[in-house]
Amino acid sequence: MTSSGKLRWFVPDGYLPRESSHGIESHEAACLLNVSGADAHVAFTFYFEDRDPIGPVELTVSALRTWHVRLDDSAILGGVELPRGVPYAYTVTSDVPIVLQHSRLDTSAGAYTLFTTLAYGE
Amino acid sequence: MTSSGKLRWFVPDGYLPRESSHGIESHEAACLLNVSGADAHVAFTFYFEDRDPIGPVELTVSALRTWHVRLDDSAILGGVELPRGVPYAYTVTSDVPIVLQHSRLDTSAGAYTLFTTLAYGE
Amino acid sequence: MTSSGKLRWFVPDGYLPRESSHGIESHEAACLLNVSGADAHVAFTFYFEDRDPIGPVELTVSALRTWHVRLDDSAILGGVELPRGVPYAYTVTSDVPIVLQHSRLDTSAGAYTLFTTLAYGE
Amino acid sequence: MTSSGKLRWFVPDGYLPRESSHGIESHEAACLLNVSGADAHVAFTFYFEDRDPIGPVELTVSALRTWHVRLDDSAILGGVELPRGVPYAYTVTSDVPIVLQHSRLDTSAGAYTLFTTLAYGE
Repeated sequence: MTSSGKLRWFVPDGYLPRESSHGIESHEAACLLNVSGADAHVAFTFYFEDRDPIGPVELTVSALRTWHVRLDDSAILGGVELPRGVPYAYTVTSDVPIVLQHSRLDTSAGAYTLFTTLAYGE
Repeated sequence: MTSSGKLRWFVPDGYLPRESSHGIESHEAACLLNVSGADAHVAFTFYFEDRDPIGPVELTVSALRTWHVRLDDSAILGGVELPRGVPYAYTVTSDVPIVLQHSRLDTSAGAYTLFTTLAYGE
Repeated sequence: MTSSGKLRWFVPDGYLPRESSHGIESHEAACLLNVSGADAHVAFTFYFEDRDPIGPVELTVSALRTWHVRLDDSAILGGVELPRGVPYAYTVTSDVPIVLQHSRLDTSAGAYTLFTTLAYGE
Repeated sequence: MTSSGKLRWFVPDGYLPRESSHGIESHEAACLLNVSGADAHVAFTFYFEDRDPIGPVELTVSALRTWHVRLDDSAILGGVELPRGVPYAYTVTSDVPIVLQHSRLDTSAGAYTLFTTLAYGE
């Protein structure tokens, strides 16, 4: 399959719940898929309600690979620690077409609930 | 990043559950992302099954900011109080391109469940 | 706002769970939004894994209205009773542009979980 | 209705939870809809974070039918057993236009939660 997708993706609803339960940390994942034959050099920028954006955070998604990037893992994000309990949003740009799907697992309040959506691509 | 997104967004499935639990109010959020360098002047219109639309409700999303607009907060919506337990829908128009994602947290019936989707943009 | 949306919408993942709990029946809703000034005459067709499609089921969504069509209510669907516990899919066509979002509430197995997605429009 | 949809679809967030509860196995489904008058010959390819893709896995979706393909059923997938507890992604190509929606039921950790999204189509 030749490269497919878009070069710019947008996710308005980011949120890392403060609490967790079930022994599983509440988290979000930016799920990237690169079906091209070339590595994708991607850059995340994080937006907030009341402070300036943070970024770019640069990662590489290898050719013919997916990467479910944990957004609560500052080691993955080049030291960027996204605050819990704070609404945010993010964009991902790439030098080769990719596809982005955004998901959350919320185990706060003793619960366990998932959501997901395809991001908006341009 | 230059401005990105669409000027008109549509969300057919709005619903504010009557009940809440877990100490967290059931609610919906219209999550807006403005990655442009200009403030976005947006207008919400709310549609119902058996009454005329309400709006416009005008808000400003600052440049380079996100805003997760709580749809159960009449103070944010210029005094508009959306009824609980009533199906509704809404549109958002903007003077600069934005992106809209719609989410619900339903804690009624002793539960705790999330859903989300990108809105339909034109 | 002038009419907006698409004339044909597609939802591959329809499923009405057999069981319910919490005093709330498991169900799905086809959430239609008609922001135009003209009534929308829509037609549903239901597809299955191992039998011929059913339809068209014709409904009218009034101008400037939403309708969250309960898919477990045969009275709304012109007498069509969708079987519970059976995978299905559906399409909606319209004579004026509309927007369709599909949602499920599953209260089977003593649970309470929501999902939603924008449909695919053409 | 004439054929409708896209020939190539992409799902970045695939994951089969290790555990199950409620007597219902955690699973995902690739929900395909073929509204054309011709059978759709489709091919799945599965992508991972740290190994080469698997595929193609070829299936046929009959004309005027839906198929909610269980991704945890190796018999359906030509013997391919997707590992549980491992992030993956997948693509579907078809020789006639189809529509793809991706859903997960996660019953791990004693929970019961659904998510869904339309796939990305090209």
